[in-house]
Amino acid sequence: MEFDNSADVELSQLGEFGLIKHLTEQIELVQSSSIKGVGDDAAVIDNNDLLTVVSTDMLTEGVHFDLSYVPLKHLGYKSVVVNLSDIYAMNAEPRQILVSFAISNRFKLTAVEELYQGMLMACKKYKVDLVGGDTTSSSSGLVISITAIGAAKKEDLAYRHGAKLGNLLCVSGDLGGAYMGLQVLEREKAVFKENPKLQPDLEGKDYILERQLKPEARRDIVELLKELHISPTAMIDVSDGLSSEILHLCTQSNLGVELYEEKIPIDPLTFDTAREFNLDPTVCALSGGEDYELLFTIDTKDYEKIKNSMDISIIGHMTNPEKGRLMVSKSGSVHEITAQGWNALLKK
Amino acid sequence: MEFDNSADVELSQLGEFGLIKHLTEQIELVQSSSIKGVGDDAAVIDNNDLLTVVSTDMLTEGVHFDLSYVPLKHLGYKSVVVNLSDIYAMNAEPRQILVSFAISNRFKLTAVEELYQGMLMACKKYKVDLVGGDTTSSSSGLVISITAIGAAKKEDLAYRHGAKLGNLLCVSGDLGGAYMGLQVLEREKAVFKENPKLQPDLEGKDYILERQLKPEARRDIVELLKELHISPTAMIDVSDGLSSEILHLCTQSNLGVELYEEKIPIDPLTFDTAREFNLDPTVCALSGGEDYELLFTIDTKDYEKIKNSMDISIIGHMTNPEKGRLMVSKSGSVHEITAQGWNALLKK
Repeated sequence: MEFDNSADVELSQLGEFGLIKHLTEQIELVQSSSIKGVGDDAAVIDNNDLLTVVSTDMLTEGVHFDLSYVPLKHLGYKSVVVNLSDIYAMNAEPRQILVSFAISNRFKLTAVEELYQGMLMACKKYKVDLVGGDTTSSSSGLVISITAIGAAKKEDLAYRHGAKLGNLLCVSGDLGGAYMGLQVLEREKAVFKENPKLQPDLEGKDYILERQLKPEARRDIVELLKELHISPTAMIDVSDGLSSEILHLCTQSNLGVELYEEKIPIDPLTFDTAREFNLDPTVCALSGGEDYELLFTIDTKDYEKIKNSMDISIIGHMTNPEKGRLMVSKSGSVHEITAQGWNALLKK
Repeated sequence: MEFDNSADVELSQLGEFGLIKHLTEQIELVQSSSIKGVGDDAAVIDNNDLLTVVSTDMLTEGVHFDLSYVPLKHLGYKSVVVNLSDIYAMNAEPRQILVSFAISNRFKLTAVEELYQGMLMACKKYKVDLVGGDTTSSSSGLVISITAIGAAKKEDLAYRHGAKLGNLLCVSGDLGGAYMGLQVLEREKAVFKENPKLQPDLEGKDYILERQLKPEARRDIVELLKELHISPTAMIDVSDGLSSEILHLCTQSNLGVELYEEKIPIDPLTFDTAREFNLDPTVCALSGGEDYELLFTIDTKDYEKIKNSMDISIIGHMTNPEKGRLMVSKSGSVHEITAQGWNALLKK
């Protein structure tokens, strides 16, 4: 099937097979374990004494993204990164993804191509093969579903249930930025709705906008831990918010936690923007989510190896379950940690 | 979280974690290769010198199913079966699935449970483990995305590209039934819209309704071929229609085909119902799709082993690509095979 890239083709003209063929022509496989990619009933993945690790995520328009301010290329990129983050959170290496999307006829080919380009950019950056998927029409919004497949040696896998009493609780990078980026985007959207002539005021907000629109998965942290010969006892990625993820580790490891508010890493721009919006920066970090940082526990014997890593913060330690899940605030008062997700922020 | 099953709970009351917890409590893992299922960032699957085979499918409301006549339990069952069929079509054994769905708040918990029950019924029947997934909300219709993972020895895998010149073209079961079942359902829906007091007239149509609403994947055929020591040279499942699948085999194997109309297996009920609807039964078989039968090619030396199998029809043979992709009609005339899918039927 031939068509002119410069003109915008109606998806209905292409048909499903035409669209799949057109999109998948750009795929290059780089993993030797990808024996068969797109084009058969199923992808085929070789394993050499490694465990296969699989994760899937679904993103829906109007719930996970708003196309009025999210460029499709960023959306494609982010939707892949979000899935890879789940594989890294097992302390594993992502190797393949399968990509499905449902699109309505209101989208043109160039729109779908942009989405796909973003997905392939993420694949390239993380050295992951796109080996299959499904493309279908939707009677309404855009829906993206991605399955990521990775590999790890049995002894390297970090489950949520592996934390031990006395382990140090660590988190990579900084938190709350993705949420504040979203707040800025939502505000400018509201302003634009009121007066379409006004240009959005995003100046100086680059870092938090990128955290929201084009997050990265922390492959570097997984690699760093390997270099340092640290096996995290438990690990999870921060997608729903720090408090929610901490509670997952506690519940599944049957432990309590003591978290120190002052240790929670928050970027100055996140902090200042939260203040600008009359929000508590700590609440944004606890409940904001979508930061895709790695939260993990390590044995105290590994403290020396990690203490000088600029990009890892030790934010607390694991306690007996009877002690509860507690946060010690900057003022010294003690609060129970609850998983409210974004609800907590809405109440503000 | 506790709730009364007899009352219908709003999904918004449960929240995502509540819903996932409630739904996944019912899952039992039966595959020893399922090291970790639901409840961590990713599922973990063990491999013992086997290749991993992965496939994914997305089903959207209003495109793939119409909830006005498709019971949710059947929809759940079918959505799993459709994916398993892709794994069998590689001559592989499905072992795990990941299930994602996006649902709007118009659904109650019991509705989601029914959907899930159907999925688990299919898992049980095909001895497949549900090891992960994602549940999210949708601003409009229901979207289901399933990824199936299977295993096969390298020498057993049947790709689409493996057909050889002179190979016999075979298909399991019968074709066109699922499409005629859909026609009956659509007709009764139209009648009901006109006059809601009229009961749907589905009498005597059980077989084709089941073909549409509760199809099965042909695990038995894959097992039979193993028993008979037959390695299909190429294989594909009939999801889009016989003609479309034949063309896939031809294109990917770089061969032509000669298909005999009189050999295409059509059930008497499918035949009679097609006539009742003023449709050509052969066109229904060629273009109807959704039969989930297996279409495969075998070496002529295997003819003796297969010729008495009641459930396998030899419908043609593979030719030089220059000869084209042809169907010899019952009257002896020769037609080029084109992949029109359901479009062909709409033109009638």
